[in-house]
Amino acid sequence: MSIVVVGSVAYDKVETGRGNATDALGGSAAFFSVAARFFTPVSIVAVVGSDFRSEDEQLLADRGIDLRALEKQEGKTMRWHGRYHEDMNKRDTLNLELNVFDGFMPTLLPDQRRCDYLFLGNIAPVLQERVLSQVMSPKLVAGDTMDHWILDTHEDLIKLLPKIDILTVNDDEARLLAGEHNLVKAGRAILAMGPRSILIKRGEYGVLQFSQEGIFAVPAYPLEEVVDPTGAGDTFAGGMMGFLARDGRITESSLRTAVVYGSVMASFVVERFSLERLLELTWEEIDNRYRAFIDLIDSHHSRWITQ
Amino acid sequence: MSIVVVGSVAYDKVETGRGNATDALGGSAAFFSVAARFFTPVSIVAVVGSDFRSEDEQLLADRGIDLRALEKQEGKTMRWHGRYHEDMNKRDTLNLELNVFDGFMPTLLPDQRRCDYLFLGNIAPVLQERVLSQVMSPKLVAGDTMDHWILDTHEDLIKLLPKIDILTVNDDEARLLAGEHNLVKAGRAILAMGPRSILIKRGEYGVLQFSQEGIFAVPAYPLEEVVDPTGAGDTFAGGMMGFLARDGRITESSLRTAVVYGSVMASFVVERFSLERLLELTWEEIDNRYRAFIDLIDSHHSRWITQ
Repeated sequence: MSIVVVGSVAYDKVETGRGNATDALGGSAAFFSVAARFFTPVSIVAVVGSDFRSEDEQLLADRGIDLRALEKQEGKTMRWHGRYHEDMNKRDTLNLELNVFDGFMPTLLPDQRRCDYLFLGNIAPVLQERVLSQVMSPKLVAGDTMDHWILDTHEDLIKLLPKIDILTVNDDEARLLAGEHNLVKAGRAILAMGPRSILIKRGEYGVLQFSQEGIFAVPAYPLEEVVDPTGAGDTFAGGMMGFLARDGRITESSLRTAVVYGSVMASFVVERFSLERLLELTWEEIDNRYRAFIDLIDSHHSRWITQ
Repeated sequence: MSIVVVGSVAYDKVETGRGNATDALGGSAAFFSVAARFFTPVSIVAVVGSDFRSEDEQLLADRGIDLRALEKQEGKTMRWHGRYHEDMNKRDTLNLELNVFDGFMPTLLPDQRRCDYLFLGNIAPVLQERVLSQVMSPKLVAGDTMDHWILDTHEDLIKLLPKIDILTVNDDEARLLAGEHNLVKAGRAILAMGPRSILIKRGEYGVLQFSQEGIFAVPAYPLEEVVDPTGAGDTFAGGMMGFLARDGRITESSLRTAVVYGSVMASFVVERFSLERLLELTWEEIDNRYRAFIDLIDSHHSRWITQ
């Protein structure tokens, strides 16, 4: 089944201890869609400016990503400039120009309104609500958010949460949203706000998934080198939703497998700048790393001992 | 099979955001032995002063811990005073009095020299070597170390490493020992120094196990409240070695199960101050948390997808 994703398409300037990238194709919808497209058809709802390079559009189109709802407006594409600390879990936003993204009013095409899988990238909750209200009867809705929306549009977000099946946040965002430092308490508190599942992303420490069935914890795939963490969260979401849409089932078991596939996809994207690694990635590599990931976390647990 | 542990027995003063403990029974050999004793017989090689309380000795003896090689010397028992940050992964040592531990010359009893399982707690590498040289043909030797020994007695430690099967270190110690920030590279570099397996303890983020067979990553058991992290590493080692000695096999599979049991035991000890939680712990609780832990990390991985 196919996925509709609403989010940003942007040009990023990124500085990490491993080098820099300038005018690099980025944004939540770009990372998400390229990752998810390995699993299932994806269509993007986003906006770019008149400076959006035709080769970038071609690159997405060539991968079979549906761009009919990628609006082009007069003006500049959104731009983000970030610098990572030596501890790559931390970064500073040096500049953010919303440009054409400011005033973006996402509108879905008739066939997109009938979609089964919807991902609401990190945009204002009121826009996420606007998109959601256009979709007739989605089978699964996942959404991302960030500190800015949690603080400045708290009520909008709280109203949206019961309509979301899966919420993705990082650990600091989870603490902020729940008003609770302990992550277990925070995860449970957010569950009580409405979503069926909360995915707390902890960067190099992996992911905690909270649902009524319990907690699932996976480490991040251990890498010898991380070049650029930009887009890791959206790539994770793309792999996770991609698996679910392909699989068609929404059970605790499929959610857990989806978290592993999300983690696998995220482990690739950080190996190079921007979308570079995803664009050269093969299914064989995904499959091999999935198997390696399962081996990484396999406890060989047929070993009960009794007193 | 039984385990011999050499390490410290101390009185701790601990301050955490959850309260304080004073004159609390602690030290690596105390935490290790109480944890390991749930699985298998343990005997302690350590030294205490004339101020060592008879009720503490009785408490260990009542659990069936062999104290024949717990030397009593004139003077004071070792004392440690630590304060944890709000981020409980960090702590400051405010005071350390080695007291009778200064000049400790561990000497094993004849039957201890024939032990199969040996744990070298965090003491000077030259003392760890001294103990090791007294043991005839151990089946498995595990050892712990710390930044102080890595920096100040580097050569002694490097000489010892090839004789150790399992080395336990925390993430900063691994980086320091390997001279490498990336943990995957650090783990592999330390493997090349001789141990068959490296266990990198990452506090609330769990454990990474490196061996020739690959990497095993487990999260920490997510807790709603951590009261006192003191002794978590030694308790982890106690559960880990306890399982291995009970199981009798030393395979990748048993090592992984042992890491899970170690993580389970560590998840209990931090729930209260000092040894309090371990002293009231039942096997049923261990068994239940082991099952909960397996559920926590179970990826339901029978779900390959093919392109």
